[in-house]
Amino acid sequence: MPTGTLLYAQSGGVTAVINATAAAVITAARARRVKVLAARNGIVGALREELIDTSAESSATIRLLAQTPGGAFGSCRVKLKSLSEDRARYERLLAVLRAHEVRWFLYNGGNDSADTALKVSQLARQYGYPLTCIGVPKTIDNDLAVTDCCPGFGSAAKFTAVSVRECALDVAAMADTSTKVFVYEAMGRNAGWLAASAGLAGRGPDAAPHLILFPERAYDEASFLAAVKAVVARVGYCIVVASEGIRYADGRHVADAGAGKDAFGHTQLGGISSYLAGRVKNELGLKVHWTLPDYLQRSARHLASGTDLEQAQAVGAAAVEYALAGMDATMPVIRRGRGAPYRWDIAPAPLDKIANKEKKLPASFIRADGYGITPAARRYLEPLIRGEAPLPYRRDGIPHYVALKNVAVTTRLPAWEG
Amino acid sequence: MPTGTLLYAQSGGVTAVINATAAAVITAARARRVKVLAARNGIVGALREELIDTSAESSATIRLLAQTPGGAFGSCRVKLKSLSEDRARYERLLAVLRAHEVRWFLYNGGNDSADTALKVSQLARQYGYPLTCIGVPKTIDNDLAVTDCCPGFGSAAKFTAVSVRECALDVAAMADTSTKVFVYEAMGRNAGWLAASAGLAGRGPDAAPHLILFPERAYDEASFLAAVKAVVARVGYCIVVASEGIRYADGRHVADAGAGKDAFGHTQLGGISSYLAGRVKNELGLKVHWTLPDYLQRSARHLASGTDLEQAQAVGAAAVEYALAGMDATMPVIRRGRGAPYRWDIAPAPLDKIANKEKKLPASFIRADGYGITPAARRYLEPLIRGEAPLPYRRDGIPHYVALKNVAVTTRLPAWEG
Repeated sequence: MPTGTLLYAQSGGVTAVINATAAAVITAARARRVKVLAARNGIVGALREELIDTSAESSATIRLLAQTPGGAFGSCRVKLKSLSEDRARYERLLAVLRAHEVRWFLYNGGNDSADTALKVSQLARQYGYPLTCIGVPKTIDNDLAVTDCCPGFGSAAKFTAVSVRECALDVAAMADTSTKVFVYEAMGRNAGWLAASAGLAGRGPDAAPHLILFPERAYDEASFLAAVKAVVARVGYCIVVASEGIRYADGRHVADAGAGKDAFGHTQLGGISSYLAGRVKNELGLKVHWTLPDYLQRSARHLASGTDLEQAQAVGAAAVEYALAGMDATMPVIRRGRGAPYRWDIAPAPLDKIANKEKKLPASFIRADGYGITPAARRYLEPLIRGEAPLPYRRDGIPHYVALKNVAVTTRLPAWEG
Repeated sequence: MPTGTLLYAQSGGVTAVINATAAAVITAARARRVKVLAARNGIVGALREELIDTSAESSATIRLLAQTPGGAFGSCRVKLKSLSEDRARYERLLAVLRAHEVRWFLYNGGNDSADTALKVSQLARQYGYPLTCIGVPKTIDNDLAVTDCCPGFGSAAKFTAVSVRECALDVAAMADTSTKVFVYEAMGRNAGWLAASAGLAGRGPDAAPHLILFPERAYDEASFLAAVKAVVARVGYCIVVASEGIRYADGRHVADAGAGKDAFGHTQLGGISSYLAGRVKNELGLKVHWTLPDYLQRSARHLASGTDLEQAQAVGAAAVEYALAGMDATMPVIRRGRGAPYRWDIAPAPLDKIANKEKKLPASFIRADGYGITPAARRYLEPLIRGEAPLPYRRDGIPHYVALKNVAVTTRLPAWEG
């Protein structure tokens, strides 16, 4: 039975299945009789010494946690700078880890979190503090290096593909006398993975989505509007999926162009779907609707991917295994077997190959005309949305999601004024 | 075995379960050996003599139809005027019905469709043409008179409540360092039924949604912003649900205020969620996100309500029964039994009690402060989102939705230039 404490924290935008990873971490640690603390609101809670005693939660609650979206311990959008620039914060962090006999630190997040975990590892070595740091992958953006895919992405991708399919059926039914163009806004500031996943909604040249706008391709308004017009003429309606992050050839974000002043002179917020819808309406005179699913796409646990859920749990269990084996500065990543059928396993990868790197959509995944996905993209994406992850609903019609007690651990250090 | 043809048509905005009604109509008619034609794109197809022979679809396809969102035969947004104003169109309609020996006309829609069905009934009587007209209820707006609720609403309500619950878990996890206010835009131009259903997402004073804006209450910006500020101070974040149709005290739509000019001087489209988000950001300085689910909320068959699905099928079967019994100018409506547990049945109601009427949210359903629902609203709404309507997914991770062959019936009349 290993001695010491395992500290787990969630970081960055949450997903439909990050709590499944958390539940797997807790379950695997319990099986090894290792005490698990969780930081409240990610690294912020570790700095503030706001720690949660997960042993206060029953096994039944941890099982429900695995099916609850959001981040049950709180997450954060905070990036620590370099060890030299942020020395005081890193030292405070080390003091907190030391005060609670933390021997294993698991940081569950994306690129930035991998970077933080790596820096904490380096710091501990500098100070001779025995600590194993593990980055645990999570991001709906699917943009982590090395790993074949990222837990959280498959569920957001499934939400995207299913929602686009459903909306397309709606628009197809109404197009004769009503909406002819529909614009769906997908998350993805720099990488078009979620926009690409919309391509799974249909097959064939006239199946929705008809046009996908990727951040990896410059937005050309004349070309886009001409393409919309041509699709409406051919199919009767047009379903457009746009990545929030698309840019003009000069690098400016198109969404920022959507910002302006409202009728009262108030500053307006941008948004790519309303912007594109406005252009279609004004330039083509077509009736248009648009959707901005926003957080719905990353929190829709009710529509999670079975593959994604399994992988989210697998990286959590592997993270505990790697931690207890002392595999410092690593991340459990997902490896894909060659060819069909789809097979995957988990393997360790060094954090320094992942930290701060960003994996964009390969050019081979984008159709020659720039407005759709290739068969290669489909082969990559489809297994990730495969399978369902059914969850029990309560009598009142709402899924059975759980709220943790989140019992605070007594502080052992003076309050931090960081 | 009754002689003649039954004509079924879909009208207005489609829903997650209108095809379940269509499937029930076809199944019930087949059991009585009655031939069913469907008009393509609602009344428009009846006028154009664009009719579909449903006998070309197998029983297996009709079963899949029952689980497919959208309107499989096409719907329309067309309202016929009075018999005197639109005489030529009504006479053309009668000519088409006569040419295809239509004895039963089932129009599946909302207020306007009930009005159309009633007028067609009156016209047939004027001309001595033997026809039974049945209005079949359908609307996510839940605003039809007489019926306790409307097929399509329960599923949209379930989508709303579940999505708000999921987004609230997301925001709760991030609020410490990121988004503190989230605005969800619900459909409902005049009646706040869907906004109210968001109230089912949580219970208790601090559970999301914290503020609901109803079209039945005048929007007061100072009061709203003060309420948001107070909730953020108390809870740490604030989930707002706004009906698209909210108005100022002087009757102007707030969403229209959101329209304006973008950075290039292009006319922008309105939208209540982006408008409110902009006000929160500018006036309170809080980080805000917003969602416009738009058609997602009415086409999400993957999250349909079990109760709603059953009712959608029941009104379809009853419509055929009423039609064959010659119960002209009626609608099968849903009646609720008194008290708990929730019980319902189907009963006939005269179309003239329903046509062109609009049922708003009762004042007793809106909390005294105007920003939430009452226990009476909860008692009414909750049974309508109860139960699931699971559907098979294909191997590729997408639900098994069907596309009909929609075989056209040979025309018997000269083309119409209406």
